[in-house]
Amino acid sequence: MPALERLRALVGEVMDLKHAADLIEWDERVYMPPNGVTVHGEMSATLRRLAHERFIAQEIGSAIEAARRETSAEPPDSDVARMIAVTARDYDKATRVPADFVAEQAATVSAAQHTWAQARAESDFALFQPHLEKVVDLKRRYVEFFPPAAHPYDVLLDEYEPGLQTSEVKQLFAQLRPRQVALIRALADRPASAAAFLSAPYSEPDLWAFAVDVITAFGFDWERGRQDKSVHPFAMGIGSDDVRITTRWVEGQPLSLLFGTMHEAGHALYEQGVSGRLHRTVLEGGASLGIHESQSRLWENLVGRSRPFWEHFFPKLQARCPSQLAGVTADDFYQAANRVHPSLIRVEADEATYNLHVMLRVELELALIEGSLEVADLPDAWNARMEEYLGLTPPDDAKGVLQDIHWSAGLFGYFATYTLGNVIAAQLWSRFAEVHPARDADIERGEFTVLLDWLRRELHQHGRKFEPQQLVTRITNSPITPEPYLRYLEQKYGS
Amino acid sequence: MPALERLRALVGEVMDLKHAADLIEWDERVYMPPNGVTVHGEMSATLRRLAHERFIAQEIGSAIEAARRETSAEPPDSDVARMIAVTARDYDKATRVPADFVAEQAATVSAAQHTWAQARAESDFALFQPHLEKVVDLKRRYVEFFPPAAHPYDVLLDEYEPGLQTSEVKQLFAQLRPRQVALIRALADRPASAAAFLSAPYSEPDLWAFAVDVITAFGFDWERGRQDKSVHPFAMGIGSDDVRITTRWVEGQPLSLLFGTMHEAGHALYEQGVSGRLHRTVLEGGASLGIHESQSRLWENLVGRSRPFWEHFFPKLQARCPSQLAGVTADDFYQAANRVHPSLIRVEADEATYNLHVMLRVELELALIEGSLEVADLPDAWNARMEEYLGLTPPDDAKGVLQDIHWSAGLFGYFATYTLGNVIAAQLWSRFAEVHPARDADIERGEFTVLLDWLRRELHQHGRKFEPQQLVTRITNSPITPEPYLRYLEQKYGS
Repeated sequence: MPALERLRALVGEVMDLKHAADLIEWDERVYMPPNGVTVHGEMSATLRRLAHERFIAQEIGSAIEAARRETSAEPPDSDVARMIAVTARDYDKATRVPADFVAEQAATVSAAQHTWAQARAESDFALFQPHLEKVVDLKRRYVEFFPPAAHPYDVLLDEYEPGLQTSEVKQLFAQLRPRQVALIRALADRPASAAAFLSAPYSEPDLWAFAVDVITAFGFDWERGRQDKSVHPFAMGIGSDDVRITTRWVEGQPLSLLFGTMHEAGHALYEQGVSGRLHRTVLEGGASLGIHESQSRLWENLVGRSRPFWEHFFPKLQARCPSQLAGVTADDFYQAANRVHPSLIRVEADEATYNLHVMLRVELELALIEGSLEVADLPDAWNARMEEYLGLTPPDDAKGVLQDIHWSAGLFGYFATYTLGNVIAAQLWSRFAEVHPARDADIERGEFTVLLDWLRRELHQHGRKFEPQQLVTRITNSPITPEPYLRYLEQKYGS
Repeated sequence: MPALERLRALVGEVMDLKHAADLIEWDERVYMPPNGVTVHGEMSATLRRLAHERFIAQEIGSAIEAARRETSAEPPDSDVARMIAVTARDYDKATRVPADFVAEQAATVSAAQHTWAQARAESDFALFQPHLEKVVDLKRRYVEFFPPAAHPYDVLLDEYEPGLQTSEVKQLFAQLRPRQVALIRALADRPASAAAFLSAPYSEPDLWAFAVDVITAFGFDWERGRQDKSVHPFAMGIGSDDVRITTRWVEGQPLSLLFGTMHEAGHALYEQGVSGRLHRTVLEGGASLGIHESQSRLWENLVGRSRPFWEHFFPKLQARCPSQLAGVTADDFYQAANRVHPSLIRVEADEATYNLHVMLRVELELALIEGSLEVADLPDAWNARMEEYLGLTPPDDAKGVLQDIHWSAGLFGYFATYTLGNVIAAQLWSRFAEVHPARDADIERGEFTVLLDWLRRELHQHGRKFEPQQLVTRITNSPITPEPYLRYLEQKYGS
């Protein structure tokens, strides 16, 4: 199949450039000496530009058409047919946006991010406002490069969740919102101070070693991955045979390293599980940000914050930190790891309140894109929703509307993926209990083989082969639904 | 100057790709998980190929010509004139060798390296012989792509020492050989067993911290560099603002980490000292391998193995390793760090015998290229020279002719650069004492500012702007000469 091989070679070269740019980004965040920032910027810019230029080249368009003709007998769900279809989809998207616009956007968000950092530091929304207005304008112009969609926001969402409709997200949120708000209200009556043993001084190497034991038990493959430290934890797959995670050590916050490691390991297990057959094609990596987040949340929350998990692992943690955890029980630790406490900051939010932070943002960005909300009115709208959902009012914009980098970076359509991740994780979790009733008993024995094998077979191996809705439906016999997630939350926190 | 700017942009992009390939190589040798080898190979191959393709493109040729016309009024030694001249030289060399030949060479040396490793493990030269014959044949064919030179080896040498002639190397070696052999013969009468305190068990973190203190005192800039561990120590500059070195810890060989760190720091100080004006041009990096090696040897040997150095640093080392060095004096340590002991293996050779290992190889290489020696006769020729120069006969070919990877990798013309490094280092060292008579007194105070400033000003800042002979002559008022080196050796070891 010469046309198919030609397409593979052309796309393979683009993937090599992207892998290189990713590895350089990893290095920048993990080991780069401070003054290396300029040379890293130069390398990244050249690699990303060449990858883009070579991907939108006419010869890729021709190769796609030729490969499609050549493989017309392949079943539509075969690796080959999906590889060609997804390449065609990516090519179509990449070629619609003119280079001038891409350059304008890069310059606009660069200035916006810079000013956002300053505005947040000074809690001065007015400083950021003109920049955000430009970004919103860019996003609305971006939408116009694409065929008319049911909702303009569909085009933005599609960057992160291929094929997902705004109407589906709205419906999902409409089901989640009332029950999550009610749950938080109910919990707010409980006094919940943080456990005293969490403020003991822990040793970083001890917690690091424990966290490594945990993710090794999960199935993290150290021959095909590594763990380092960085300011902001992240996971990065340079192909499925080199998947790297980072974590951070914050003095006084022992849980941050533990759950951060499990979270990033969840992303990494996904990347390590993508079939080698898809390597160097557009199908490698995760299906969407939401599906990716479902894997990090599954290991962090559904496994790592569960009672059976701590039944098994607490004695091991206690053996590593005997003085800090003297007299503490597995149940004490489980409770401490699941404390619900409405707060102003998304990244510090607990499992029960997190989605409300996300919904607030998605609703506001929808309104900005629809034109029903002006940027100037954003802080008031933010604060009103915080009060409505979490019963809190930010003392200033730094702890409110200015807290996240996303909008300044032009990431509209991104926030929803966090909630999708929570929802899909619970849906998979519930399905897994149907096919493997010993799910919780396995966890209590520290045994994760059946779970990982199931995720590999049902989800990981497929990479980007299927769109999120199709993938979830294949595995759970239902499109994405919030029911399992709400049941999980209500059972865990309502009891 | 639009043509000059165009040339800068085109070459800058090539340099970005080379920087990226270098960083990926660093990663491969330092932090890559074992199974990442395939994806690293793919990235490297694509980046190196694109860098080559883009550098030999016709548009670079045209840009060179246009920039040359545009800048014809610039003095010939100006940055701009030299940048254009060296780019033209590199372009001419890169475009002479056909892509087919490059591919054939890559395949041949890949197979040769693989077989060499096996042949060395089994000490079976016959296994390696047909591969080495192919490599020698390739090298002789390579020479034919270039205009006739005074000696065919000139073309090979030029890869590593631009502009240096085989006749110059031969003359240099002819002066060195008899006096070095005589010195070794004289020293061979002295019984010299290794100092007992070197076989005490040392702690890696203590020696690491000491070595870091030493190179920090040398002037290594940690804002623009870092140090890690790897199996084979190396230095790599990704531009002068991100220069990385590695060292290794060998149980039972405490000096290996200390002198290895100083050696690689010498390379790094050179790279860090290249002027930012030359960044992203072909003039960044070192002038030649020999000049580069002169910097590593200067800091490792002329500074690091000197008496004043240990007068200052031994008490600090003793404070870090009090039990291992109890009762040891600075002079004891100095003597132990300068033990002369003829041995079979180049990479383990001391300062006094090292050059003889190199000369032997260069002489054999020259004979192979000239056609006066057949590959089949190489082991005998090797062993005869080992006896003549060092009074030793290898027990087998693994410890003789098969010990180095260079020939299997096609690196003909490379070995001479090690000896050039030693010779040039001593020549610079002698010159520095003339301009700064307090040279040794400074070292005894642990003060290296004047030395580093002088090296920066005279040598480092120029990068590849001048060819080795021109550079050495500018600094020392003499072309490369072995006299200072021989005087240094005879004074240090003859006394």
